[in-house]
Formats: sequence, structure tokens, C-alpha cells
Amino acid sequence: MTYHVGPLDVRDYECDLQGVVNNAVYLNYLEHARHQCLLDLGLDFAALHDSGCDLVVTRAEVDYRQSLKSGDQFFVRTHVRRASKIRFAFDQIILRAADEQVMVEALIIGTGIVQTDNGRRPGLPQLLQDKLDQFNTAAE
Amino acid sequence: MTYHVGPLDVRDYECDLQGVVNNAVYLNYLEHARHQCLLDLGLDFAALHDSGCDLVVTRAEVDYRQSLKSGDQFFVRTHVRRASKIRFAFDQIILRAADEQVMVEALIIGTGIVQTDNGRRPGLPQLLQDKLDQFNTAAE
Amino acid sequence: MTYHVGPLDVRDYECDLQGVVNNAVYLNYLEHARHQCLLDLGLDFAALHDSGCDLVVTRAEVDYRQSLKSGDQFFVRTHVRRASKIRFAFDQIILRAADEQVMVEALIIGTGIVQTDNGRRPGLPQLLQDKLDQFNTAAE
Amino acid sequence: MTYHVGPLDVRDYECDLQGVVNNAVYLNYLEHARHQCLLDLGLDFAALHDSGCDLVVTRAEVDYRQSLKSGDQFFVRTHVRRASKIRFAFDQIILRAADEQVMVEALIIGTGIVQTDNGRRPGLPQLLQDKLDQFNTAAE
Repeated sequence: MTYHVGPLDVRDYECDLQGVVNNAVYLNYLEHARHQCLLDLGLDFAALHDSGCDLVVTRAEVDYRQSLKSGDQFFVRTHVRRASKIRFAFDQIILRAADEQVMVEALIIGTGIVQTDNGRRPGLPQLLQDKLDQFNTAAE
Repeated sequence: MTYHVGPLDVRDYECDLQGVVNNAVYLNYLEHARHQCLLDLGLDFAALHDSGCDLVVTRAEVDYRQSLKSGDQFFVRTHVRRASKIRFAFDQIILRAADEQVMVEALIIGTGIVQTDNGRRPGLPQLLQDKLDQFNTAAE
Repeated sequence: MTYHVGPLDVRDYECDLQGVVNNAVYLNYLEHARHQCLLDLGLDFAALHDSGCDLVVTRAEVDYRQSLKSGDQFFVRTHVRRASKIRFAFDQIILRAADEQVMVEALIIGTGIVQTDNGRRPGLPQLLQDKLDQFNTAAE
Repeated sequence: MTYHVGPLDVRDYECDLQGVVNNAVYLNYLEHARHQCLLDLGLDFAALHDSGCDLVVTRAEVDYRQSLKSGDQFFVRTHVRRASKIRFAFDQIILRAADEQVMVEALIIGTGIVQTDNGRRPGLPQLLQDKLDQFNTAAE
């Protein structure tokens, strides 16, 4: 499933002394887009936390192609898929709205940490598993 | 002149360990709304900096009424007016979109720092002065 | 009681496109100094949250005197006092380390939100009340 | 060359609603450590920008092993090396101070963008090239 967020405005406080969006801020954008994508699937990051399941990032690979600047607008395209029994992957792209050029490409791997009677262990919420399996099947 | 921004989404990374938007983040929201308001007047914060004029905040008074949370949307209403020969004031309110309740009220005072041949001195860009005078006259 | 934090380094990502520390970032510095001050009194912000008491900011008055830049170091001086039955006040100053010039002066008012059987209500943790009363008595 | 930063305190505003340091904040920590490392080599990120050379991140690979929490202290170890004619690489590790366990491992690739009479082109400042070559030779 591919989910679109935007157009969003670059906010001036997100730009650093080089006058471009700071490298860490793109991780903020990417996270926001992932959480919106999960919400669209019926999974609320904050509600999951309150229910004892934390979705966490285990690896991020980010390629910075060009820089967003003050005044720019952008889109984030997020594709989510199952990566293993307990891992999911998000393929994400940040596009500048004006010309649809790729600013950032990222692969984000995550898992869930579930609170059980015997402590915390890796695992995915059933609803997320079901959704991911459904996409995989549909894609075949 | 009153300028409206929103609805904007609270982003989960903006919430702190109490599960609510961190107090400093509202300053980010307020700044973004001021810069959008200035843009609407024809004043671009980044372009002004490049031309040798920095708009700066000299005082902020912020009353925190209620807290925004994950999943909330909000509006920012910004009213700009002249505060003195070299100062301008923004009266700003952040409203929760769902019920239009006031989350934050703020008074932000700013000035400009202009690069001249004799160094940097306080002062406002002429365009901003003209706009502010125009509002004051219109309000009489 | 006055509590000192620092010297801390300005981090380059805290500077915005004007090349100075962004106005909202000083609120981060001030919060960090308050939490360190509270820790010194035996009050742990995160542990308080876990125990059902949230310390929250209700008002901030911040005067920006000069700007910190990349490469600067700074101190934060925090004085805490009781402001009313359910409010406490922090008088805070951010000083540039190189010349001890004042960058920012702030007055931060806060209260506690306590989880009770009948819902959440304003109130201060007993330990904080005791500490604040002790300072007031000592100051007389 | 390996450069050490720390111990630094986790600041509570850096923790998100899960009560742990947000994934993007580690990128802030890593950047701060890289800039301190560069300073130690005689290269000032902000001064370089003012002189027309921007050091930029082109790729980040970040493995999140464990989470830092409120109250934790940490170190960042940074090893810089030449990656190609116009690229340099930082191998970085964030360690929890209490037990020296690895929280985050990262590989950050960067380059320089130099302002020339014919526009901007990739390139490294000569001083950085000299330093990197010196390390490579020393390591043989």
C-alpha cells in the first residue's frame, strides 16, 4: 500500500545555518508520514503505546539527494510491507512539490515491542500483521 | 490584519514523554504562523535575511491553557500590529480544531536588525512599516 | 535556591537560517535547566509522570537580549520559588560563557496536574511543596 | 582519528510519547559529535558555510539497538575517514554512559559543496582533504 502525505510547508525553524532543511528534520517528516500511513490502516501510534505496544525503528537508510529550502513544499510517499516475521519496512520518498524532484529516499525498518505478562518482547500487533499479509497477498 | 494558518496536524515527535505537545514546540507553531502571515504581506523571512535584514523576536509572553495531543489538529490565528517606531507585535492564538478551544495565547514582540554601511542597527524594512501603518490607519 | 547548569555547547542544528539559535530552542534550554534543578531537589520529571503527576508550564515570559551563535557556550541560572498555593515560579537567565553577558531572561510559571480517584486536578507534589516552603522560610 | 564527545545528558524534551529518545534526535546527537570532531581537526562548520563551502550529508545508515531514556547520559564516538575522492565517512557509535552498551551505530557519508566562479560543485575543503589523507597514511 502506498500512502501520500502533503503538500506540507517547510517551516523556517527546520532550516539550519546553511539555509536548508537540517538532515535530522527529514527523519521527522518521514516519521510523521509513517504514522499517518499507519493511522490510515487503523493503527494509532499513541493509542498503541497506551495499550502496551511500542512500534520502534530498528534501522534507517537515508539517501539525501537535494535539499529543501525555506518556501518549499513537499510530499512524502510511503509504501509499507512486511520485511520478516516480526519486522516491517517502509520505503519512503520525499518529493519537492514544485517539480516532483526527489529530495530524500529512505528505507525504514521497524518492529513492535509488546508488553506481556513475562516482560517485553518483539512482536507485531495482530491488526498490523493482518494488514501487511493482506497487501502481500494482493501484490502476488 | 488577522491571518489564519491551519488546520495543521500535531506530529507525534512533537509530543514529549507526558504525551502532550512540548511547551517549546508551540513557539515553533507560532513562528511558522508569523512567517506565513509575513509572506502574505509580501515579506519573506529568508529573503529578508539574504538581503541583510533579520527579523528577530525580542519578547514572548505565552499562556498555556490546555495541551494539544497526538491526533489533534489546530489553527493559529495571528494579528500583527505596530508596537512602536521600531517594534511590531503579533497577538497569536492556537485553537484546537475539533472544538475551537484555546490552547495557547501569545504576545510576540519583534524588531528588525538592518545591515548598514555603519554596522547593524535596529530598524524595520520599509515594506513592513508601510503595511503596518496601513493597518493602523484602516483600524481608526 | 539557585541552580546552575553548564557550560553547554550551542549545537549547530539549533541555529536557524539566520545563523543564530532559534527562539524556540531557548525554551528547550530553559526546560532542561528546570528539570536538572528539580532533580537536584529530588524531583524527577519523568518519574513524576509515571507516578501520575505531570508538572506543566502555564505561562512563559521570555526576553531575548542577544543571540547565541554556533561555537558559543552558555550557562543557565535557575531560581525556583513558590508563586501561589498551586503554582511555582522559575526565574531563569541564560548567560554566554565567554563574557557572562545575558542572552535571555525568563519567568516560567508552572503547576502540577495530579491524577486522583476523581480525575485530574491541579496540585503540587508534597515533596516539591516542602522544598519550596523550606526555601521561602530560609529566605525570610 | 577517533573523537569522543560526552558524557552528555538526555534532555527530557528529546523524549517522545513512548518515553524514549525519538529516532530523529540521535541524528542531532550524531551531527553535533561530527561537528565537534571537525572542529578538533580545525574545521568549523559555520565558518566553512560563511566562506562558501557547505559540508552536507549524502547518506545515513543508522542501526537503533537500544533506547536512551530520561536521566540517561551518553557518549558519542566518531571515527572519520576518506571514502572517495570527494566523499568522507563517519563511523559513529552512541554509548550509554552507565554501562557502555551500544544504543546506536551509524555510518554517515558526506561531501562538500564548494562555491566557485562557475557555480556550486562537489568538493572537499583542502584542509579536510589533507587531514583525511594524513589519517589514511598513518593507518597504513
